[in-house]
Amino acid sequence: MTPFNAPAVFRPRDPDAPAWDAATFEAHLREQGKSYHIHHPFNVMLNTGRATPEQIRGWVANRFYYQIAIPVKDAAVLSNCPDREVRREWIQRILDHDGFEFRAPDGAVVRDEGGIEAWIRLGLAVGLTREEITDLRHVVPAVRFAVDAYVNFARHAPWQEAVCSSLTELFAPEIHKQRLATWPEHYAWIDAEGLSYFRNRVSQARRDVEQGLAVTLGHFRTREQQERALEILRFKLDILWAMNDAMAQRYGVNP
Amino acid sequence: MTPFNAPAVFRPRDPDAPAWDAATFEAHLREQGKSYHIHHPFNVMLNTGRATPEQIRGWVANRFYYQIAIPVKDAAVLSNCPDREVRREWIQRILDHDGFEFRAPDGAVVRDEGGIEAWIRLGLAVGLTREEITDLRHVVPAVRFAVDAYVNFARHAPWQEAVCSSLTELFAPEIHKQRLATWPEHYAWIDAEGLSYFRNRVSQARRDVEQGLAVTLGHFRTREQQERALEILRFKLDILWAMNDAMAQRYGVNP
Repeated sequence: MTPFNAPAVFRPRDPDAPAWDAATFEAHLREQGKSYHIHHPFNVMLNTGRATPEQIRGWVANRFYYQIAIPVKDAAVLSNCPDREVRREWIQRILDHDGFEFRAPDGAVVRDEGGIEAWIRLGLAVGLTREEITDLRHVVPAVRFAVDAYVNFARHAPWQEAVCSSLTELFAPEIHKQRLATWPEHYAWIDAEGLSYFRNRVSQARRDVEQGLAVTLGHFRTREQQERALEILRFKLDILWAMNDAMAQRYGVNP
Repeated sequence: MTPFNAPAVFRPRDPDAPAWDAATFEAHLREQGKSYHIHHPFNVMLNTGRATPEQIRGWVANRFYYQIAIPVKDAAVLSNCPDREVRREWIQRILDHDGFEFRAPDGAVVRDEGGIEAWIRLGLAVGLTREEITDLRHVVPAVRFAVDAYVNFARHAPWQEAVCSSLTELFAPEIHKQRLATWPEHYAWIDAEGLSYFRNRVSQARRDVEQGLAVTLGHFRTREQQERALEILRFKLDILWAMNDAMAQRYGVNP
């Protein structure tokens, strides 16, 4: 892995130490939640009711770039993964985001508009137009670069490392629940229907994390590999944090 | 595109000529079927009843490597494609090959074992074990290299070019129907259940080709682009032909 394919500089602190058992390794992974962007000043502002409509619109429009990257990133995982059983589960993530419409043999139609469309409807609910969301005019360059770093990593890293990088989903249900709990109170002007993306993701993220965690615990076995996994998770946390930094700089953080 | 990402050497014969209309362009694409591996001596041998059980087993075991490459190739297309509408259709190909099991909101389960599993059952029907199919022990190096060239192209080419390369599906229903028509007669020792892969693909390939053709006719608009599309299709035909060459060399062609 070159310096241009982050996480760039991996120096295991204690490569010769014995491997952690699965419970300890998982605890170390979960401990990284201390750096989750739930603690970023920009996110804290959003979820404590101190954001203006303009700041909320800015956040929704910028975060859309992350949303549309997710199925592309997940397809990269599929494309690097020779294990059909893993692919059969992982593909659900793409269906969740892109949506689908299947016709069952009995003629019944099963459809889901998908997370990207749900995000657009969040955007409409906060006062953006579909056009200004989907043409990406509001996306701050540093947000784009951070998201692209994630997709680029998933394209070029071994698929198990890309799976590991998805483990910020460990911390996602909490941030979605926080939004669901605080936004209707603080931002009564936002149609509650617009928040359905957050509702859907609470259960989807829980299911996704089971698979991601199983792959990670199974693949990273030596201490050096386990430390590498922590490094990858920190890299992904950095991406989410950097997105918030860029939005804070563009839209400001109210006291 | 470098010489190491085939189709390597593209020299449009008549780049300044006016573009073909859609019907003429499609006719030129279909005309390439003259080089489809349905005409390869090894395939002709298989489908006219002159193959030994060993030759049939060799073909099934080698072609398995192509089968397992298909969803990986299709995931590469997804991963390079920013158009959600295209992805929502294209993902069906991965589901077709990998299989799926969905639980509808009413609790009904929709499942499909998928084309890779159907191919393994073809292998079992011709006398191979699951292990010797899936561990790829019979795969001839030149077959592997040809298939890898296809996956590599799909990874690195623009997604519309990868879609174009899939258009050998224009010719696939014919070869599957030929197998269904001739194998039960010539090879009565093969359980007819084992041929279900071919049955499934006749209708799937027809549906797939509609999407592939629509993308190709829409994307390659100038004469130079249209000639490039023909070149890409010929590259893919070369892959299928080279696979048959390699199997002919390994297993022989009976007179």
